[in-house]
Amino acid sequence: MIPSQMIVFLFIFLQSYISLAYDPDPVNDYCIPRTEFSSIFLSCKNTSLVTVDDFIYSGIKDPGNFKHTGFSSIPVSSTVFPGLNTLGMSFVRADFDVDGVNVPHFHPRATETAFVLEGKIYSGFVDSGNRVFAKVLEKGEVMVFPKGLVHFQMNVGDSPATILGSFNSQNPGLVKIPSAVFGTGIKEEVLMKAFGLSDKEIARLRKKFVPQ
Amino acid sequence: MIPSQMIVFLFIFLQSYISLAYDPDPVNDYCIPRTEFSSIFLSCKNTSLVTVDDFIYSGIKDPGNFKHTGFSSIPVSSTVFPGLNTLGMSFVRADFDVDGVNVPHFHPRATETAFVLEGKIYSGFVDSGNRVFAKVLEKGEVMVFPKGLVHFQMNVGDSPATILGSFNSQNPGLVKIPSAVFGTGIKEEVLMKAFGLSDKEIARLRKKFVPQ
Amino acid sequence: MIPSQMIVFLFIFLQSYISLAYDPDPVNDYCIPRTEFSSIFLSCKNTSLVTVDDFIYSGIKDPGNFKHTGFSSIPVSSTVFPGLNTLGMSFVRADFDVDGVNVPHFHPRATETAFVLEGKIYSGFVDSGNRVFAKVLEKGEVMVFPKGLVHFQMNVGDSPATILGSFNSQNPGLVKIPSAVFGTGIKEEVLMKAFGLSDKEIARLRKKFVPQ
Amino acid sequence: MIPSQMIVFLFIFLQSYISLAYDPDPVNDYCIPRTEFSSIFLSCKNTSLVTVDDFIYSGIKDPGNFKHTGFSSIPVSSTVFPGLNTLGMSFVRADFDVDGVNVPHFHPRATETAFVLEGKIYSGFVDSGNRVFAKVLEKGEVMVFPKGLVHFQMNVGDSPATILGSFNSQNPGLVKIPSAVFGTGIKEEVLMKAFGLSDKEIARLRKKFVPQ
Amino acid sequence: MIPSQMIVFLFIFLQSYISLAYDPDPVNDYCIPRTEFSSIFLSCKNTSLVTVDDFIYSGIKDPGNFKHTGFSSIPVSSTVFPGLNTLGMSFVRADFDVDGVNVPHFHPRATETAFVLEGKIYSGFVDSGNRVFAKVLEKGEVMVFPKGLVHFQMNVGDSPATILGSFNSQNPGLVKIPSAVFGTGIKEEVLMKAFGLSDKEIARLRKKFVPQ
Amino acid sequence: MIPSQMIVFLFIFLQSYISLAYDPDPVNDYCIPRTEFSSIFLSCKNTSLVTVDDFIYSGIKDPGNFKHTGFSSIPVSSTVFPGLNTLGMSFVRADFDVDGVNVPHFHPRATETAFVLEGKIYSGFVDSGNRVFAKVLEKGEVMVFPKGLVHFQMNVGDSPATILGSFNSQNPGLVKIPSAVFGTGIKEEVLMKAFGLSDKEIARLRKKFVPQ
Repeated sequence: MIPSQMIVFLFIFLQSYISLAYDPDPVNDYCIPRTEFSSIFLSCKNTSLVTVDDFIYSGIKDPGNFKHTGFSSIPVSSTVFPGLNTLGMSFVRADFDVDGVNVPHFHPRATETAFVLEGKIYSGFVDSGNRVFAKVLEKGEVMVFPKGLVHFQMNVGDSPATILGSFNSQNPGLVKIPSAVFGTGIKEEVLMKAFGLSDKEIARLRKKFVPQ
Repeated sequence: MIPSQMIVFLFIFLQSYISLAYDPDPVNDYCIPRTEFSSIFLSCKNTSLVTVDDFIYSGIKDPGNFKHTGFSSIPVSSTVFPGLNTLGMSFVRADFDVDGVNVPHFHPRATETAFVLEGKIYSGFVDSGNRVFAKVLEKGEVMVFPKGLVHFQMNVGDSPATILGSFNSQNPGLVKIPSAVFGTGIKEEVLMKAFGLSDKEIARLRKKFVPQ
Repeated sequence: MIPSQMIVFLFIFLQSYISLAYDPDPVNDYCIPRTEFSSIFLSCKNTSLVTVDDFIYSGIKDPGNFKHTGFSSIPVSSTVFPGLNTLGMSFVRADFDVDGVNVPHFHPRATETAFVLEGKIYSGFVDSGNRVFAKVLEKGEVMVFPKGLVHFQMNVGDSPATILGSFNSQNPGLVKIPSAVFGTGIKEEVLMKAFGLSDKEIARLRKKFVPQ
Repeated sequence: MIPSQMIVFLFIFLQSYISLAYDPDPVNDYCIPRTEFSSIFLSCKNTSLVTVDDFIYSGIKDPGNFKHTGFSSIPVSSTVFPGLNTLGMSFVRADFDVDGVNVPHFHPRATETAFVLEGKIYSGFVDSGNRVFAKVLEKGEVMVFPKGLVHFQMNVGDSPATILGSFNSQNPGLVKIPSAVFGTGIKEEVLMKAFGLSDKEIARLRKKFVPQ
Repeated sequence: MIPSQMIVFLFIFLQSYISLAYDPDPVNDYCIPRTEFSSIFLSCKNTSLVTVDDFIYSGIKDPGNFKHTGFSSIPVSSTVFPGLNTLGMSFVRADFDVDGVNVPHFHPRATETAFVLEGKIYSGFVDSGNRVFAKVLEKGEVMVFPKGLVHFQMNVGDSPATILGSFNSQNPGLVKIPSAVFGTGIKEEVLMKAFGLSDKEIARLRKKFVPQ
Repeated sequence: MIPSQMIVFLFIFLQSYISLAYDPDPVNDYCIPRTEFSSIFLSCKNTSLVTVDDFIYSGIKDPGNFKHTGFSSIPVSSTVFPGLNTLGMSFVRADFDVDGVNVPHFHPRATETAFVLEGKIYSGFVDSGNRVFAKVLEKGEVMVFPKGLVHFQMNVGDSPATILGSFNSQNPGLVKIPSAVFGTGIKEEVLMKAFGLSDKEIARLRKKFVPQ
């Protein structure tokens, strides 16, 4: 006989983060991760248990709360919408208050096409030769941000604005420059030299971005 | 000396269809095809000639003319939006009159995520086990159609409806089942046997779909 | 102590469909799925347990039973021939009685090269511009069907015919147009509009293709 | 005016080897290289010039001349069958006289599935742990040779034998071990040390494999 | 007759930047771009013109000039070492004076493995959850920087230090955060909001990084 | 109640070889395999358990023991350096005594860039047209060996030499020609015919390479 704790241990043991997979070229029509064990195995639900709701996402009908900071985003990767698993796509809804800013950021694993659902958005990216391509987009216009390049947006209209972004990865990743650089424990000397700032200036920037 | 015709011939000779390329893993930030020779060489514009407008598409602000057939679509691949070249993405705007139908079709080279911009859309796909996953989507909902599977949509609301589809290929391709099967010169006997229809029935269907 | 049922439950629980994997670029020489758990984990057999028979398939020496419908096919994906797992290839044997038809179909995840082992086969595909490329193939000839495009075949000789198809995916998928469109629960109105048929005609077609 | 030689020079200049392309994920239905310039540009024929014959290969109906050496092979890559261009597949016909041998070789860019069309073939491969998987295959059996691994075949029956190999690359490449190692100008000392052979033995092997 | 200017024009016309290609899965052994036309066509040198020197790079035997800024790097992509073309790899030599810093940067198209050739290097990266992984590396140690993530290095030893970085792309790209963000024409308001800085502070940072 | 043996059995059962994964296009920043179960599941450690040491490898600071055979190599794939998992790269340190030889070999799944850390190395590869590209490399020079092609190296200097090789696969594989051909159980007749050697000569070669 074995103690039930051992089984419990086994279960807990297995309850950790996993979503190892790859974007290109699925070998099945789809693969809905098994909810019970999705965090453990790379296994697909038995197709007989798959329903149409596995392929529909309803969580971006409404904006996130953008009132506080002027900006909100709801990224929808395969983590929150498991139907995307193995299919090589995901998306994001971004809402901007007047003057709201989506800070310079990039997605390490995807190109993005951004469609303006509402409003006037100053939108741009920087190529690896440090050239900026930026312009004000109107409702119905689309801009493409090439894979891995830094981009940014700002509502330059008189009313809230909304963007729908699409990605060619089920999990594009998101690196926000200000917090990735100043909100993390990178050695102070590195930042001082890199930005030509004093230790006090770096300390002040850190204060803003290091999570309390 | 050579006759100038020879050069003219050379130019004409080269003016034919080309857009050979591959979706995954670009080796440059972007590659705007050279407009003068884009039909000839797989060459990118000198980056100094690239402008922000190369990365913005403004042609889907308004619906296509969906009044005649109840449905219109404006596919935006790298052919019409060269900024997408090598970036592995493209998109489509589809508009539906009341009861308008997007006939069963598939994209041989991409998964699609379809976002409902306006209206109520009955939307679904068929997996390779012949199971249908279909449901009525509301404004703001998203459905994913896995790579290469047959899907379809119908406006089941009381007013026109619009969808924005995104693809993970710069040129997903489009195969509309009715015209691909009945609108082409596939031998009559094949279709009779395949669909269990008489030669008259096949002839009648062909009449509808073969372009005049 | 824990009840044995719990373990039994665990096992049953895990016994569901899985074959998540991707076609390109394996990271091992091969990966024979573990038979005991292949339906659960993406795990490879210990190489010391792998034998030559894991890499050989003997199930297409003889034709399937094509007498009833005039056509039979034996698709050999990684599901039935586990040695193909991670290697990006699979194949199919198709047998045709005189006048036998392989109905219009496509493979969502692979290109196919079809080699005529025996007989005379009218063979063709439709490109995404709705152009048909079709011709009668003789024994020893090969036709290529590009990834995701609709294709079909018919024995136009005086004796049974056989084809060997090869695919560049371990699980290319198969969508047969007649049954995918008329043998599934797609809303009647969609089909009526799509094919310009009456509800009676659709009902008659459905009767043929919906599995009883 | 310019001398016509300059143009001639331009043409000659361009007439050199090229077939740069990549296997995965085409962005068109197909791309038949333009015959006039296929050696120069990566350009596809205008689709209106493409015919069904571009997708059919008739050159392996009959065996090559295997009488002299006991073995012949007809590799059909995209170089000889341009319809394969961008589609990620190719194939080979191999014929064996009684006792004929296909020497140990490998394909640097593809997995192979080998189908026995006729005869009894001893067939095998070596994995990267130096384990041999080999067996006699009968007509109608299929063996898979994983990407990049050394494999070999020998007719062990009483009559000629034939194999149809398929590859998941439009140009898999072929490296025959004996000639790649002993038929090339690798420094003698390297070979002596590598194989533990004397200079005379190496010289004798070289004589056999260096093309005269 | 045509004017020679027309030909000259044709040549000049073609002399622009191009290196469109993709990393995965070459279809040839190698493809040395034709030097005469490499900027125009995606064409490979005739193999008979390829020499061993096409596959060897000798330009990183010595450090770059790191005395002025404390840091120098010599990136070797397929642009400077054409032998890498289509092979999916490239590399970089980085030299650090005492206290020299490689500012926070990332490569949009590649993972990097960095080997310490000489010295003691504080080295780290930030994951997309804003966690820093950093440590002092000694001579002979290797750190991996996952694809697209921000990383940085600083010589914390008493003497100059050197690193050899390798990439899994022929052209990984390089985005240096300080200059990409502050050295380009991103709208001032975006930066003020993003970093919580005043217009004067932004102006001061810009002065440092905008090329004069 | 169940017997504890059953659980033990379950654990042992699962303790077998696995590292199924694919090189291109990860969907996470990284994925450190869970050490407890890495041999069982394709699961990543919970990111909170990941440390900087998971991304650093210290095992190639010193050479292997190259004194006995004149050559040693320390391959560092994702098996020994789990931080490489899913990131598409790995590396090797090779040390050569004077006259030491790295026998003709190839990597079935990767291109290699080889950097000379120390010494003078005669280094080359054979393309699939049986042409050798070889030359003596000096310290600081780099040679690229295209994916899947046979290559070799020999120390032609007066003192020990060292090379650092990098690969664009987390597990490139290694096939050493002499042992793969003569050190395995390939049928004698195949080798006799392939190399034009007598049974005695083959037997002698086998003696050298078949592990005792």
